[in-house]
Amino acid sequence: MGKIKVTIWNEFVHERDDNPVGEYIRNIYPDGIHEFLKEKLQADDLEIRAVSLNMPDQGLPDEVLNDTDVLMWWGHCAHHLVDDELVARIRFRVLHGMGLIVMHSGHYSKVFRTMMGTACRLRWREVGEKERLWVVDPTHPITQGVPETFTLPHSEMYGERFDIPEDGKILFMSWFEGGNVFRSGVLFQRDYGKIFYFSPGHETYPIYHDENILKVLGNAIRFVNPACGVLPDRITPTPQSHEPITTENPLIEVKTACLHQQKK
Amino acid sequence: MGKIKVTIWNEFVHERDDNPVGEYIRNIYPDGIHEFLKEKLQADDLEIRAVSLNMPDQGLPDEVLNDTDVLMWWGHCAHHLVDDELVARIRFRVLHGMGLIVMHSGHYSKVFRTMMGTACRLRWREVGEKERLWVVDPTHPITQGVPETFTLPHSEMYGERFDIPEDGKILFMSWFEGGNVFRSGVLFQRDYGKIFYFSPGHETYPIYHDENILKVLGNAIRFVNPACGVLPDRITPTPQSHEPITTENPLIEVKTACLHQQKK
Amino acid sequence: MGKIKVTIWNEFVHERDDNPVGEYIRNIYPDGIHEFLKEKLQADDLEIRAVSLNMPDQGLPDEVLNDTDVLMWWGHCAHHLVDDELVARIRFRVLHGMGLIVMHSGHYSKVFRTMMGTACRLRWREVGEKERLWVVDPTHPITQGVPETFTLPHSEMYGERFDIPEDGKILFMSWFEGGNVFRSGVLFQRDYGKIFYFSPGHETYPIYHDENILKVLGNAIRFVNPACGVLPDRITPTPQSHEPITTENPLIEVKTACLHQQKK
Amino acid sequence: MGKIKVTIWNEFVHERDDNPVGEYIRNIYPDGIHEFLKEKLQADDLEIRAVSLNMPDQGLPDEVLNDTDVLMWWGHCAHHLVDDELVARIRFRVLHGMGLIVMHSGHYSKVFRTMMGTACRLRWREVGEKERLWVVDPTHPITQGVPETFTLPHSEMYGERFDIPEDGKILFMSWFEGGNVFRSGVLFQRDYGKIFYFSPGHETYPIYHDENILKVLGNAIRFVNPACGVLPDRITPTPQSHEPITTENPLIEVKTACLHQQKK
Repeated sequence: MGKIKVTIWNEFVHERDDNPVGEYIRNIYPDGIHEFLKEKLQADDLEIRAVSLNMPDQGLPDEVLNDTDVLMWWGHCAHHLVDDELVARIRFRVLHGMGLIVMHSGHYSKVFRTMMGTACRLRWREVGEKERLWVVDPTHPITQGVPETFTLPHSEMYGERFDIPEDGKILFMSWFEGGNVFRSGVLFQRDYGKIFYFSPGHETYPIYHDENILKVLGNAIRFVNPACGVLPDRITPTPQSHEPITTENPLIEVKTACLHQQKK
Repeated sequence: MGKIKVTIWNEFVHERDDNPVGEYIRNIYPDGIHEFLKEKLQADDLEIRAVSLNMPDQGLPDEVLNDTDVLMWWGHCAHHLVDDELVARIRFRVLHGMGLIVMHSGHYSKVFRTMMGTACRLRWREVGEKERLWVVDPTHPITQGVPETFTLPHSEMYGERFDIPEDGKILFMSWFEGGNVFRSGVLFQRDYGKIFYFSPGHETYPIYHDENILKVLGNAIRFVNPACGVLPDRITPTPQSHEPITTENPLIEVKTACLHQQKK
Repeated sequence: MGKIKVTIWNEFVHERDDNPVGEYIRNIYPDGIHEFLKEKLQADDLEIRAVSLNMPDQGLPDEVLNDTDVLMWWGHCAHHLVDDELVARIRFRVLHGMGLIVMHSGHYSKVFRTMMGTACRLRWREVGEKERLWVVDPTHPITQGVPETFTLPHSEMYGERFDIPEDGKILFMSWFEGGNVFRSGVLFQRDYGKIFYFSPGHETYPIYHDENILKVLGNAIRFVNPACGVLPDRITPTPQSHEPITTENPLIEVKTACLHQQKK
Repeated sequence: MGKIKVTIWNEFVHERDDNPVGEYIRNIYPDGIHEFLKEKLQADDLEIRAVSLNMPDQGLPDEVLNDTDVLMWWGHCAHHLVDDELVARIRFRVLHGMGLIVMHSGHYSKVFRTMMGTACRLRWREVGEKERLWVVDPTHPITQGVPETFTLPHSEMYGERFDIPEDGKILFMSWFEGGNVFRSGVLFQRDYGKIFYFSPGHETYPIYHDENILKVLGNAIRFVNPACGVLPDRITPTPQSHEPITTENPLIEVKTACLHQQKK
């Protein structure tokens, strides 16, 4: 089997800010979150690209997007700048099997909200409080290799209520020092595509330096990869289709003419 | 409690076609499916409007949409003509609690696909075959008053695979003479809004004349009504919100400054 | 409509202990948790009984159990003393529509574990830490009339991982001072019966004196009541049944004899 | 990785009946369904045992059950003869990770009903009618290698309503010639164990001779195998546990003594 083609998309705005915040973030992610993750997640079975909003075609021309097995998405302050047409192309790809990993503030991106149908609102607070993650499904491939609970010393609080659809399979729940809880790792399926949302990842803390966080992201890449356990001819869904009368349907006779046929 | 304000939206195209098909359909629904349903569903607790695509603002100006508790949607050949901006307004209303009942070929409408996140593809065949519905959840308010199984003598076949999200609670499943099965009555929740999809309703058969079908639609109106069992102050969700440090959070101290504060 | 017949079952052991703990608990619940709840939950639409393990037939003879619409269950140290035959009778009643509310340490009762199929394990700690509850579904009838978050000053910690089946609809999640999170209000359906598990209720803290907790329990009684929105003839499920060949099944011919018929 | 240890359990009653039915069935399964499946499912990665009710310890002494990764279960007329103690041991094993595949009339076995919590009732009819299966999740490992629809020329009808819990992930739905539909392939998780129910398999038709049916069963074995994608140390769950105050919980102070401590 070939390598999994991963594309890490980052809006790449905070890291380039010409102010003390940008400087602070650059100390953590000198070349941006996408380049940092590309380096940290590299492995023999992965072929990783790092792209960003400021690149041509917002980083995802057809030749990149259509060559991507798993798309990772980090966005925060530039959600509104992402082209609706790009969002539609990503949605099409996800429904046809491309895996999608939405990170942190990507919860409010057009891409995630389009796939969910909901607004994906939550409560938030940025005071550097402690976050403690709990594994809710220890049997899932995405939770392997991390302890049943682990702590991030400083994190942005993301709290309930999080208005995601109820089919989200909860893999992680988070506790925050200030009194909030959150479904922090949730898995969805939308047609042929698997979508994993993972909330840790605020840009002003070195969260993607954490080994457990990286382990989860690495597991998620392998799991949402469309070829994970699936035959090649099952990776692309069949279109909405007319179902003819065949020998498989021997019982049926045409009882009424298809009235619309003359127009179709 | 006041009446439930129901708006029945119909693209109203087939019924006005100047051809034998249109003539045939007009025999079944002289003034359109929307007007027919308005008459048949009338009840003391309901205040029903019938609107259509060819009306100003495509039938749903703000003063109508924002005054609607439950929106019913029938569309087929004119999905592409519905304004994206109207779809966005409907989505906003559903997430804020407006009930939505999507009927028959509305499965492929922009409205339904936007709420689902998926493409909502299915198999179909129009030969007038028999459809038999089965109640899968006999305890649900939407299935009350109809027998556990009932038959439509002629129906358009809608068959699996139907690529809807897995949180759809199955209330009805359908059997078709020609060898197909379908999840024909499915209930979703998207934030504060309940969405019921019910597949019977092909325009060339008198399906909405059927008492069981009307019973299901009437039950669904009462169930997806946002005030069903819910306090008035719970009908509109709170926005995404910053969570302050308060006396409710006595444990917390600000450990890091909110770095982005200066920009926000 | 008649009154909802509620039976509150309590193992009633801690409250009668002849030691300082028992004395301490009697200060909170002089006549036992069941009698306290009976008094606090009384309302015009409810007819409440309080029963306990030390009564004849363990408090639930047929004439009581079969006359109960909603059974509330509190147990902790005497789970093993509950007769298996009583558990079987309760299970039968729940599957036939009786509502069941399992409270606090009832998570580990035979009754709850039988309905779940799982062992219902969790983490726990009793140090009087603060518990903060969050409403996860603000549209649900069970969460009406309580604030989106509220606090219990002292509580026993119940923490994840809680090995319940995934169809549990999460209504409340809890945060604990010591670093744990928990799905503290979860709703299940098992055949015709609704089951609500609600974790707050440790016997050494006056948790059932809390107005919000009482509000939730009161809402739950009305919601799991089998007649909630359901026709009387739908309250009892049909048995597993042979499906005859009838005029409803005109297509079918007997293709093979029912070979087992001669034996049945 | 070692081989997957599969144990196929069969009540093995019909096949030994001393009457025309038994004779008829022996033509299809000369040594019983279990031995037939053992032969047909053999593969390099599987180590398969075939056992039956009439063997010592009802075929599943500890040394067999505890050495089983995946248990397959076929029962029909002898459900009541299976020891409750064996059912309890199987349940314990499933919750600790053993995969379980329940076949055909095993839907009504003590084992399946114990894991579900419900009675698992359905409608049935035995006239040799045609069954057509539809793949509802074409991306799932269990549905790989079979066509999106395939037909069994003669089958026992199993029809809705099937009172299983709602967390059953639907992989297959079946259509029956006589007008019924059924969720015929459904996947559950109960703690660490995966459970797959697959309805085709009536003893008087050669259904397990069908290549598609065998393919599904083979896929299911690999998928419910507890080691499927899971680390060895995650195959056995941790027990319900007391959660101590540690350096991981630096915020907490003991606010009240654990009153029960003196007794525990």
